[in-house]
Amino acid sequence: MIDVKAIRKDFPIYDREPKLTYLDSAASSLKVKSVIDHVDHYYQALGVNVHRGAYDLAYEATRLYEEARTTVSKFINAQENEIVFTRGTTTSLNMIANAYRDLLKKDDEIIVTELEHHSSILPWMVIAQKTGAVLKYVPLTKEGRITVKEFEKVLTDKTKVVAITYVSNVMGYVTPIKEIIDLAHKKSAVVILDAAQAVPHMAVDVKALDVDYLAFSGHKMFGPSGVGVLFGKNELLNMLQPVEYGGEMADEVFKDHATFKDAPLRFEAGTPVISGAIGLAAAIRYIENIGYDDIHDHTIALKEYTLKKLKELKGITIYNETSDISTITFNVDDIHPHDIATMLDQYQVSVRAGHHCAQLVSRFLGVNSTLRVSFHIYNDFNDCDVLISSLKAAQDFFLAF
Amino acid sequence: MIDVKAIRKDFPIYDREPKLTYLDSAASSLKVKSVIDHVDHYYQALGVNVHRGAYDLAYEATRLYEEARTTVSKFINAQENEIVFTRGTTTSLNMIANAYRDLLKKDDEIIVTELEHHSSILPWMVIAQKTGAVLKYVPLTKEGRITVKEFEKVLTDKTKVVAITYVSNVMGYVTPIKEIIDLAHKKSAVVILDAAQAVPHMAVDVKALDVDYLAFSGHKMFGPSGVGVLFGKNELLNMLQPVEYGGEMADEVFKDHATFKDAPLRFEAGTPVISGAIGLAAAIRYIENIGYDDIHDHTIALKEYTLKKLKELKGITIYNETSDISTITFNVDDIHPHDIATMLDQYQVSVRAGHHCAQLVSRFLGVNSTLRVSFHIYNDFNDCDVLISSLKAAQDFFLAF
Repeated sequence: MIDVKAIRKDFPIYDREPKLTYLDSAASSLKVKSVIDHVDHYYQALGVNVHRGAYDLAYEATRLYEEARTTVSKFINAQENEIVFTRGTTTSLNMIANAYRDLLKKDDEIIVTELEHHSSILPWMVIAQKTGAVLKYVPLTKEGRITVKEFEKVLTDKTKVVAITYVSNVMGYVTPIKEIIDLAHKKSAVVILDAAQAVPHMAVDVKALDVDYLAFSGHKMFGPSGVGVLFGKNELLNMLQPVEYGGEMADEVFKDHATFKDAPLRFEAGTPVISGAIGLAAAIRYIENIGYDDIHDHTIALKEYTLKKLKELKGITIYNETSDISTITFNVDDIHPHDIATMLDQYQVSVRAGHHCAQLVSRFLGVNSTLRVSFHIYNDFNDCDVLISSLKAAQDFFLAF
Repeated sequence: MIDVKAIRKDFPIYDREPKLTYLDSAASSLKVKSVIDHVDHYYQALGVNVHRGAYDLAYEATRLYEEARTTVSKFINAQENEIVFTRGTTTSLNMIANAYRDLLKKDDEIIVTELEHHSSILPWMVIAQKTGAVLKYVPLTKEGRITVKEFEKVLTDKTKVVAITYVSNVMGYVTPIKEIIDLAHKKSAVVILDAAQAVPHMAVDVKALDVDYLAFSGHKMFGPSGVGVLFGKNELLNMLQPVEYGGEMADEVFKDHATFKDAPLRFEAGTPVISGAIGLAAAIRYIENIGYDDIHDHTIALKEYTLKKLKELKGITIYNETSDISTITFNVDDIHPHDIATMLDQYQVSVRAGHHCAQLVSRFLGVNSTLRVSFHIYNDFNDCDVLISSLKAAQDFFLAF
């Protein structure tokens, strides 16, 4: 059971903003004290580079950085040499797409979906244009879901890559990914999983999934901004050409050629996001300490309660009543989502309005933009009530004209 | 005049390690309190995303992030729309090389030098291999310098790109870059300047230089790790294809094509290194407050003093007596640099041993690795004395066998 009062003590923002109703965790979660403390400790006590120095401070920084890698690897059941620290999910997904540019050829097929965040679709759209490969979309069900049945319709012997979301950032649907991965592997295609919205809400086991690549970010899971993870099966990572070139990733450098280290350093050119990695590890420990069962039960209860209340209001269109996580996407009839969001902010209610960097979902829904609320462990039922009463107030205000 | 005692009060590490003799600032500088405080403030008081949210916390985060961009732009005399926040110099340089992959063709020429850090040479080596372009090296003088005269020897009508260091991270030589840029422009070539070692030591004015692209990092100038800057002339940045694709950089996304925003957002896909950018701005304000004249005078005085003392020792080979900044690269005869560095660490003296991610420089010098000491504003003459006495002790120890 989540004790929100106790949880809020772990999030310093509530000391400053006790009346904050933060409902935009799917964009960025709030930041937990242990993460902030670990970032601060690195800067106060160390601040030096990793891997490079032959002195105590550098050893200690390297130890913390590599311990963070171990923490991440255990967290998703991977090996350490399968964990690359990146700037975030976006960079992770772009790295893989860029690495496959030289492996794809004309008429190869790349399977994507309309549920993708821009970071999971645009890199492959561009690589397809550059290579002559073909982008194929899994047809969505009426409800907007990816199903195994529909996936099979686009899977062919030409499929080389499946780039797909684990959990939709707009609809909150969980993709039936295990079956999709198994089917893709039968065609020798690789699967790149955008897990940015999954990892903050559910346990992810890369071995059980047998997924080839997977990406997630620190900032959506109580961790620092500007750090993320690229998981790749070790044998795949070592088969790929590096994507960025620079310090600590090269083995030998000559004037006309060079050789490169194995993963993960192969993909970590230059000074890494040291404090970010250390902070991310602290976030993982915090989540593990709470446990995904409680996170799931709590956030789903908030969502169900809110859905019920939303349905009692008049003039609300909900787009994802069957959302599998705590994301609700909706609109208030006749009022622009941005106007609603701005009005809600008057009551210190933070929600997201727009296309949520997933314009194909908006197009699928037949709208330009939507409101999105997303819950996490620091939210309570009062937050839901404040949301509902603020929505009512917004309706009263705007519909009076 | 630098008052080192006062300066050290600004660097919290000295509270914990008062006897620290930190001489590896060319790898990473120590971190100044105002930077740490700004990073901490973002996480304590905000922690949310930028650009996306229509609520107060998001507006405030966005304001700080964009203010940081303004601070950076003024710092190097650029426009705001010419400043892209990246993970660091390495990412900045790789981004430009990747963007030019589709603009270069067989037999086009790319001018580089043996003084480059791996991050300034490897991306172009790989792009040359992929495009059929030719990598040409500026012949170095005997001393290891890049001169305008030697540059002119490799500049031709086929030159499309000049990728060059502003200040060598091993030799500390300042490249006569203004003349090189003017000559390159006469051939319509673009110049990409690796300024990672320049910005911590000297004022950089992109307009006066008329440079096309320039990169530097936060972590070498008292700022956070994992943040850097890519400067590009606005008309060039908007002519380039984006490098990473994702949130907040796209304009309109359709199933088969997409349009993209102008710079800088064009090159900042996904959640940026928010705390990093805010911290970097604090670092810049700190540097501006001290002033480059004092930084230069102080660090050069330390270098000159150390050079004199080193020359009084026996069995020392110095590779860059005429270094233009405060970097000294040397070896102790008959003792491996790593052994020296490890021994110095016993006295809490932090120096760098190795090839410094610039193997072509080592090859030019005819050695596998070297010792490098690099000074900054928190160093004093006592640091130089401790270095010298520790070197003596290391010689006594190792040469006794």
